[in-house]
Amino acid sequence: MLRLLTAGESHGPALTAILDGVPAGLHLSSAVIDEELARRQRGDGSGARMKIEHDRVQIVGGVLEGATTGAPIALLIRNLDHPRWQGEAVEPMTKPRPGHADLTGAVKYGYRDLRLASERASARETAARVAAGAICKHFLAQFGIRIGGYVVSIGTVVADLGDMTYEDRLVQAEQSPVRCPLDTAAADMQAAVERAIRAKDTLGGEIEIVSLHVPVGLGSFMQWDARLDAQLARAVMSVQAIKGVAIGDAFANARLVGSQAHDAIVVDSSHTILQRPTNRAGGIEGGVSNGNPILVRAAMKPIATTLTPQSTVDLATRQDAVTAYERSDFCPVPRAVPILEGMVALVLADALMAKLGGDSMQEMLPRFASLRTAALDDLSMEDSPHVLWESE
Amino acid sequence: MLRLLTAGESHGPALTAILDGVPAGLHLSSAVIDEELARRQRGDGSGARMKIEHDRVQIVGGVLEGATTGAPIALLIRNLDHPRWQGEAVEPMTKPRPGHADLTGAVKYGYRDLRLASERASARETAARVAAGAICKHFLAQFGIRIGGYVVSIGTVVADLGDMTYEDRLVQAEQSPVRCPLDTAAADMQAAVERAIRAKDTLGGEIEIVSLHVPVGLGSFMQWDARLDAQLARAVMSVQAIKGVAIGDAFANARLVGSQAHDAIVVDSSHTILQRPTNRAGGIEGGVSNGNPILVRAAMKPIATTLTPQSTVDLATRQDAVTAYERSDFCPVPRAVPILEGMVALVLADALMAKLGGDSMQEMLPRFASLRTAALDDLSMEDSPHVLWESE
Amino acid sequence: MLRLLTAGESHGPALTAILDGVPAGLHLSSAVIDEELARRQRGDGSGARMKIEHDRVQIVGGVLEGATTGAPIALLIRNLDHPRWQGEAVEPMTKPRPGHADLTGAVKYGYRDLRLASERASARETAARVAAGAICKHFLAQFGIRIGGYVVSIGTVVADLGDMTYEDRLVQAEQSPVRCPLDTAAADMQAAVERAIRAKDTLGGEIEIVSLHVPVGLGSFMQWDARLDAQLARAVMSVQAIKGVAIGDAFANARLVGSQAHDAIVVDSSHTILQRPTNRAGGIEGGVSNGNPILVRAAMKPIATTLTPQSTVDLATRQDAVTAYERSDFCPVPRAVPILEGMVALVLADALMAKLGGDSMQEMLPRFASLRTAALDDLSMEDSPHVLWESE
Amino acid sequence: MLRLLTAGESHGPALTAILDGVPAGLHLSSAVIDEELARRQRGDGSGARMKIEHDRVQIVGGVLEGATTGAPIALLIRNLDHPRWQGEAVEPMTKPRPGHADLTGAVKYGYRDLRLASERASARETAARVAAGAICKHFLAQFGIRIGGYVVSIGTVVADLGDMTYEDRLVQAEQSPVRCPLDTAAADMQAAVERAIRAKDTLGGEIEIVSLHVPVGLGSFMQWDARLDAQLARAVMSVQAIKGVAIGDAFANARLVGSQAHDAIVVDSSHTILQRPTNRAGGIEGGVSNGNPILVRAAMKPIATTLTPQSTVDLATRQDAVTAYERSDFCPVPRAVPILEGMVALVLADALMAKLGGDSMQEMLPRFASLRTAALDDLSMEDSPHVLWESE
Repeated sequence: MLRLLTAGESHGPALTAILDGVPAGLHLSSAVIDEELARRQRGDGSGARMKIEHDRVQIVGGVLEGATTGAPIALLIRNLDHPRWQGEAVEPMTKPRPGHADLTGAVKYGYRDLRLASERASARETAARVAAGAICKHFLAQFGIRIGGYVVSIGTVVADLGDMTYEDRLVQAEQSPVRCPLDTAAADMQAAVERAIRAKDTLGGEIEIVSLHVPVGLGSFMQWDARLDAQLARAVMSVQAIKGVAIGDAFANARLVGSQAHDAIVVDSSHTILQRPTNRAGGIEGGVSNGNPILVRAAMKPIATTLTPQSTVDLATRQDAVTAYERSDFCPVPRAVPILEGMVALVLADALMAKLGGDSMQEMLPRFASLRTAALDDLSMEDSPHVLWESE
Repeated sequence: MLRLLTAGESHGPALTAILDGVPAGLHLSSAVIDEELARRQRGDGSGARMKIEHDRVQIVGGVLEGATTGAPIALLIRNLDHPRWQGEAVEPMTKPRPGHADLTGAVKYGYRDLRLASERASARETAARVAAGAICKHFLAQFGIRIGGYVVSIGTVVADLGDMTYEDRLVQAEQSPVRCPLDTAAADMQAAVERAIRAKDTLGGEIEIVSLHVPVGLGSFMQWDARLDAQLARAVMSVQAIKGVAIGDAFANARLVGSQAHDAIVVDSSHTILQRPTNRAGGIEGGVSNGNPILVRAAMKPIATTLTPQSTVDLATRQDAVTAYERSDFCPVPRAVPILEGMVALVLADALMAKLGGDSMQEMLPRFASLRTAALDDLSMEDSPHVLWESE
Repeated sequence: MLRLLTAGESHGPALTAILDGVPAGLHLSSAVIDEELARRQRGDGSGARMKIEHDRVQIVGGVLEGATTGAPIALLIRNLDHPRWQGEAVEPMTKPRPGHADLTGAVKYGYRDLRLASERASARETAARVAAGAICKHFLAQFGIRIGGYVVSIGTVVADLGDMTYEDRLVQAEQSPVRCPLDTAAADMQAAVERAIRAKDTLGGEIEIVSLHVPVGLGSFMQWDARLDAQLARAVMSVQAIKGVAIGDAFANARLVGSQAHDAIVVDSSHTILQRPTNRAGGIEGGVSNGNPILVRAAMKPIATTLTPQSTVDLATRQDAVTAYERSDFCPVPRAVPILEGMVALVLADALMAKLGGDSMQEMLPRFASLRTAALDDLSMEDSPHVLWESE
Repeated sequence: MLRLLTAGESHGPALTAILDGVPAGLHLSSAVIDEELARRQRGDGSGARMKIEHDRVQIVGGVLEGATTGAPIALLIRNLDHPRWQGEAVEPMTKPRPGHADLTGAVKYGYRDLRLASERASARETAARVAAGAICKHFLAQFGIRIGGYVVSIGTVVADLGDMTYEDRLVQAEQSPVRCPLDTAAADMQAAVERAIRAKDTLGGEIEIVSLHVPVGLGSFMQWDARLDAQLARAVMSVQAIKGVAIGDAFANARLVGSQAHDAIVVDSSHTILQRPTNRAGGIEGGVSNGNPILVRAAMKPIATTLTPQSTVDLATRQDAVTAYERSDFCPVPRAVPILEGMVALVLADALMAKLGGDSMQEMLPRFASLRTAALDDLSMEDSPHVLWESE
């Protein structure tokens, strides 16, 4: 079972993560993780902070001789501007920003400075998740499972990706400053972000995460919390500013009739492999992966910190006030892609480990090779009537 | 910590649930639970099964003298048509239904009869969840927290609820055969369901669950899996046929600009109580309840079992085939409302117990009364500059 | 991951257990479980209740066609004397018994009748654990793993089992009315129990649980709560009246010197298999099974309910008082053997499932066959100096 | 809920711990933790390593302005001799030490150098636990709960502490180089350790951890894994080289009769407070703290690494061999005291948090003050016959 705990504050000494449960024998270097950290720092719409952060991970546990040992992996990401804060007296922050954890944090924990909430609640923490997620992605890649993502909309600009293959979407997205695979939409998104910046406003959007070559059989319908879609929903919704999660295009599908909302099962011409010409289910049926690409769509709200002041109350003076600006992104949607990839990878790696069992890559790889697939030869059916429950 | 395990098959002897962690001293009778079970069995668009089911719970553990003792509560719901299956030989089911767990279940577990998947994967299991959820709702009600829900759309019929208060929505919905608070939309939905039945098809839709009078401070932004929205997403997505979850109107909000997507903080005229004129956040900021009604929206796919045969493959003959009809609903959306309420209640009850601690209602009630609120008197702020991190 | 929740009260309608996580394809009937339930009801020193209980399990979920499906298994054990209690008014119990949960339960949960504590805290609940444990034992048996136990001491009578093989111990114990493998000691134990009964007193003792043919590699030293000995300690200590747990003869070993307290590693004459001529470690090194029999020893206190009245206080009158007798065993040590076996089986089954992964016996059995053993051919060592941590 | 993950290797860059779930508002500095780390490094019988280690913690998350914020606390303890290992080629270790994780680790994880097991399995890891445990102790101290420990035996030298008060035991132990409160026994223990060192051997022993002023009502008998004794057993047994755990003097108690093995309940002269003249139960009845001091006794084996070579097999040559010496302690029993204290504190802090609920010290302290005690005024009893289960 994978366990992930992260710790650390935005301007504290470091972000820390411990990822427990990774098997032994996975080749791993900090470069694998740094690449994802760099992806998290790229993307149009970033604020000034991105210029000062150049996140690099230090692996301080769990890796020897360039490979995992089965021990928990400890990751450290230094906050480069921490020294500026050390010993420095700051004015207390007393005007809670709508949409942030400022007020809920203060009420819940009894803070006397709203900064104490935002230091932990802010999206800076996601660097630790991306680092842990990078390990999960890397683990999955050993089995040919690939996870990527792209931006589907920013503000009111929506990309209609039509029949573009998932592979193409992932490749194209990485070449786009807004991580949108479609050039024309990407250009419109960039323009929208520019306008938002000039308007001292922020933009949200939608992201799709695709997991390719996931085997059949991850997740389970046996217990409510074992369903793969439920686990994905939790992991994705847990990301700062994500307020909606859908498997496939769930909200649009809810308006279709049943005969048009599912994926026919057909057999290939050799009568051996079952195929699904469509993927309306988003790769999950009955809470279990069905071998199709797993599509997770997320809705990200426009972030709460706007240069345009918003109405609030100064808790110190008890008077109406407006928010002060804290350094932030204008449109974090492109940068959220690798964060969501990491969280999806965490869930899928955990589910794959449960399916394969074992403690080392050497044990897992041959087991993976012999998993049942959607091939007819792997399935055999009863050939005569049978009794499900005996009489008493 | 609340723990819920359910067990049982659609046509087996009974559904069972054990709900562990309910405090002592909660007055509870089977009538409280049966009422919710009855709500689950009402609603237009139900199939024939609803006529034969009259679910009643038997409490077989955890309640003495009409009140909980702090012991795990065991619930039993007999399947009334189980005797018909006992000792009866049935033909194996070999044609997997698209959109169901039939095929994924067979691959994952190695079944030789697809019935083994559907017996556990089907929505019959939700009766056990509704029963457990009824206890959670009842627990929350002791603190004035009320959870209800309503149908927002069925197929392409969408109800625009405008400014209708949440209280009115809940009252109206219970009087509607499709659980839609708006009469005109409800009539259109009923007509749509009728058409779908005649067309041998099925319909999905959208549901909104509202939790009223939730105190500030449930959930946390301190760890990824502690966020209230993440927990709600998992619980709601875990329900059969639910494929999308949003806090508030997240997918629409993703298209707004930041200055219009949040909820201003204002102080009332007496300068004591903080208020939020809008509820775009859906009651959760920073993963923590903010005192506003919590809105969870779910997208339900049209269920997979259609009278119109769908393309599949007979796994026994390896030939193309069409699905056989299994008794099912045509539009389970209205009936899903109490199921989702129950799952939301499970999450909120667990979060409230964590906030209050203790082992009995007697301990919890006074603690609830002294929770910090969004009143200014409960909050005090630092009045001078201070050092967050000491120099080393 | 195996999850077990039990529910139910001593005189309530039934005990219930849900065991979640058992793979599909395990042949299972209620007879397998009833046999263990019967073992739990046999043994000298039992009180009158054993005469009226003839526990039989009803499997109400998770088993179809005589085999598990991967679904949670729900078990129901009726309390045969429940009808006598229904509708019957009883005097409140107000004099807490020393050593029982009466007083702690009343303080913790705010009870107004001490019966509410004892209804759940009493050892009657172990019937549900034995039923779940029987499934775990049966699962392990498919891999050749056998779990049994015997009584090592009752009161001051200690059996010196010397070199008797574990197999013999288990066989002999089942033929003894006090579950002691050594005839002479067994006779002394029986006499001691008789004396205790005549003296209106109770006796405790020590039990040893042996797990044979456990493969190397269950448990882990990677995280504190992953150690197999830690998990066993929790499971065994959780049983009513068990107050001490040791792996092997830990308390005696603590007085040896290091050179005499461990198990030499030798290679057999063919230079292929590593062997351990002794088993001082009790089958666990570094928190991981080492292939030797796993020995878990437990200390059971003499139970608190004695016919000899004990000093207490009547909480109703606030006056000194003596305990009233509640029907109970005089020496439950023999009957505790199958309970502890079940708890050990729960832990080992869970650990074996983690090692094997997968969802069905068909998947697991071949994986088990290819586990690494303590054979030299399964191990290969680096042959030259190497760098564990790169320079930065 | 408290969650603790540790990571790091003996000679890697650092040990890391994340402790999740500590409430806000607990004043905390690294000095509080360093004091416990220093206690772990003191004690006769230590090996050479203790001279080079001077562990100091760095708090890298969760503490601002000298107090916790409710965020996970991240702790870093540098391994001072790590630089010596960086970039340095080492000979592979191929001769497994009996009693260590060398062989089980190699089989389980497929290692080609036994060092990979010992780097994580060794007791060096306990520094991270002591650091986390120090926080838990400090938290408990705010409520007047004090945890300490002492050595009861080393090798065959057993201290008979008789009637010495627990307070005295704790004070005296800290002044003894072997942490034994009794001077004469301490001197004998020191001599025994000297002899063992000269004999190139090692010694184990027994330790007792005492928790004073624990309120009634921590833990629960409601579910097997909720019992306080079960949780303590897991935590204590999880410590390296601990092989036995007892609540109170469980193994001796198992030989008493029931009428002499429990703690009478008496009322004080004012007829208000319930008292227990003895503490045979070790502070726990029915899996719940009863207000008496909680006594946890642990058996520690003599550690496996002896200067006297032990029989083993060289896995590289497949020939019989003897173990090579790795730097280690001769008798770690005195140093284990603060480790066990830390693990007991982890369990009790978690249980106290569950009892109190809430998110800050400000919330918890008044709740603690109003906990029910074993005072008669806190308890009221039914005064007339009543029906526990209604007729159906």
